[in-house]
Amino acid sequence: MTTPLRSRVASANVPGCDFPIQNLPYGVFSTGGTAPRRGVAIGDRILDLAACEAQGLLDAGGTFAAPRLNDFIALGRVKWAGMRSALTTLLAEDAAGALPLVPMAGATLHLPIRVSEFTDFYASKNHAFNVGVLFRGPDNALPPQWTHMPIGYNGRASSIVVSGTPIRRPMGQIRGESGPEWMACRRLDLELELGAIVGADSRMGERLTVEEAEEMIFGYVLLNDWSARDIQAWEYQPLGPFQSKAFGTTISPWIVTQAALEPFRCAGAERVNPLLPYLQEKQPGLYDLTVGWTMNGQVMARTNYNVMYYSSAQQLAHHTGSGCPMRIGDLLGSGTISGPSPDQTGALLEMTEGGKEPVTVNGAPRTFIQDGDEIGLHAFAEGEGYRIGFGPCIGRILPAEEGARHLTGTDKPVPEHEIA
Amino acid sequence: MTTPLRSRVASANVPGCDFPIQNLPYGVFSTGGTAPRRGVAIGDRILDLAACEAQGLLDAGGTFAAPRLNDFIALGRVKWAGMRSALTTLLAEDAAGALPLVPMAGATLHLPIRVSEFTDFYASKNHAFNVGVLFRGPDNALPPQWTHMPIGYNGRASSIVVSGTPIRRPMGQIRGESGPEWMACRRLDLELELGAIVGADSRMGERLTVEEAEEMIFGYVLLNDWSARDIQAWEYQPLGPFQSKAFGTTISPWIVTQAALEPFRCAGAERVNPLLPYLQEKQPGLYDLTVGWTMNGQVMARTNYNVMYYSSAQQLAHHTGSGCPMRIGDLLGSGTISGPSPDQTGALLEMTEGGKEPVTVNGAPRTFIQDGDEIGLHAFAEGEGYRIGFGPCIGRILPAEEGARHLTGTDKPVPEHEIA
Repeated sequence: MTTPLRSRVASANVPGCDFPIQNLPYGVFSTGGTAPRRGVAIGDRILDLAACEAQGLLDAGGTFAAPRLNDFIALGRVKWAGMRSALTTLLAEDAAGALPLVPMAGATLHLPIRVSEFTDFYASKNHAFNVGVLFRGPDNALPPQWTHMPIGYNGRASSIVVSGTPIRRPMGQIRGESGPEWMACRRLDLELELGAIVGADSRMGERLTVEEAEEMIFGYVLLNDWSARDIQAWEYQPLGPFQSKAFGTTISPWIVTQAALEPFRCAGAERVNPLLPYLQEKQPGLYDLTVGWTMNGQVMARTNYNVMYYSSAQQLAHHTGSGCPMRIGDLLGSGTISGPSPDQTGALLEMTEGGKEPVTVNGAPRTFIQDGDEIGLHAFAEGEGYRIGFGPCIGRILPAEEGARHLTGTDKPVPEHEIA
Repeated sequence: MTTPLRSRVASANVPGCDFPIQNLPYGVFSTGGTAPRRGVAIGDRILDLAACEAQGLLDAGGTFAAPRLNDFIALGRVKWAGMRSALTTLLAEDAAGALPLVPMAGATLHLPIRVSEFTDFYASKNHAFNVGVLFRGPDNALPPQWTHMPIGYNGRASSIVVSGTPIRRPMGQIRGESGPEWMACRRLDLELELGAIVGADSRMGERLTVEEAEEMIFGYVLLNDWSARDIQAWEYQPLGPFQSKAFGTTISPWIVTQAALEPFRCAGAERVNPLLPYLQEKQPGLYDLTVGWTMNGQVMARTNYNVMYYSSAQQLAHHTGSGCPMRIGDLLGSGTISGPSPDQTGALLEMTEGGKEPVTVNGAPRTFIQDGDEIGLHAFAEGEGYRIGFGPCIGRILPAEEGARHLTGTDKPVPEHEIA
């Protein structure tokens, strides 16, 4: 085993740390009510990028002063590589000079990017089959086009929040005994996903190869696509999920770059049939990443991102197939990551067979998520002597609120998702 | 009949003019390569709002200098009413003083708003039934929830373009004899819709009544939701339309305000069953608007917006039902507007019964749209001695381009949809 590179930040060298010098994920943070600023996670610290740039330690063309990372991402792949190299030098064990490091424990983490649009895919064959059985029966479980194209739908970007933001149980229209009723969701679920962040624009009419799409991906976050299964069952045909997925989507605060994941690149699930040329990839497009989720601290499932049938690059290439333009800050959800067995599933719907087989959480039975439950997602890649971790992606469920809630007025606080 | 108010701009007083002083729709224009600026259409002229503000004729808090109308819209309903009143005074027949008026014929019209997100609904019962028969047969034509909720899906905002922008026929994955093939769309269609522009933010967790939603709508545009029916048929189950609707959506350049449409408020289609309380409206939510479309100049269909089953306010209330936050610049497509007979349908799919019954256009048979065809949408309300028109919403189809098209590089032109 080669000796891994070490950092001058001692906590980054502790085995099992999510943020060693090999990782260097980007985020946006604030301390003590100050304006949000850009940072890189290193051990239990955050390197203040805006301060680094102000002190002449890094050069990002002033983009680290912007409230989100979009402007930095817009500088392009060559700059991303240059910044990774500069950060590695700055944070290496043998580097000298003071650095603007902030304890992560005292910082507030914000949404790292201004999400342009959100697209959610459906790329685990196990998940697509299991959910298909529950919604449509075993004969129509896997849609006929599923092994030929990455099926996706446009999600809602305005309700994307950062890890730690409480999620309110939604109200909605739900099928009752004698017609639809307006009620609080009773089948609240999570979906364990990765989210790919698009790092370059494409033009309307421009159609990308898988290789070109790969070059456009800046990095990845964890993504919990909270789902109201009873609202979904009533609303989703024929135009797809809508309000059942619109009440909140949680992402992790640190963007793990494609560069940090490069050593873990691997192939995905075996192909059932050849893909059309526009979806064929010249290199493996997935990563050997352990992913899993917890409920109230108990590990519920663990699997690997490499069970997926389509990579983010294939999804992005397909997305541009019609000539649809992509923009920096577009977020592509991988689809729920599920392995074949129940303890590898990324959603309670699958794990409990549609609520019929309860699971035990800290000694109590559960089918779907109850008020007060906290769901955490995690993901990491194991390198030689280091781990590339994503940090937590957490959300706790608040009880539903009945009735209309009207909060307009000039004194409305600016919500997190609207900053810049 | 009362004598209608007249304008000092003579062309605005000509019978049948789309833009009399009763209309005053907002847009963004440029002349001779200058930067886009805000304007109001009056007769065959555009009142330059930025120039008006610079000259002290109007006060919009400097927002008329922004490249899109979002900042002005953000000022809120009271300011919208005040500006309408100030514009009416400024443009009245008896007003004096020079005005910065620009001939519309020499101006380039741009997207009037920065579209935050695009949601498309499905609110004509005739259309939902007709299309349902074609996609799923008569037994499952109208989904069971259709008369209980405004079904909608998230569309793609990045491919929304202004009237006049050519639309490239998309390539896509299409079901063939022996499996899917990659080919140019052969069943290219239009969808005649209105688009409502959301004029205020709502908060995450905030749920609006229909009346509150009504107060949040700034105005309306025409919207052509171009659709690739063969791509759609293969991709759309179970998650809804995706690339079949992502290659382009055309909107008209002038936002007709809710205030201008107020005299034409009327009820929509008769209810099949009572709605749940959160969707019930205290006042009629539709408008008596003649709408129609042309192909290569020939009128193909004409109907009325009041055939719709759900209003934009009901759609917006439903959209916030789960607590989904809305943002200024969100665009809500009404859904295809179709009356019961073929010459009242807003899509060729319906008009030709899925391509089985060709129609005649300028003497030649047509099922779907051919390369070079130009589709125009129109809409107007007839007042007493004046007409509130939307102006044209036009798009011409360019032939498909095979192969990948990669246009990246630092010399890429900034496309229309990306300006601020």
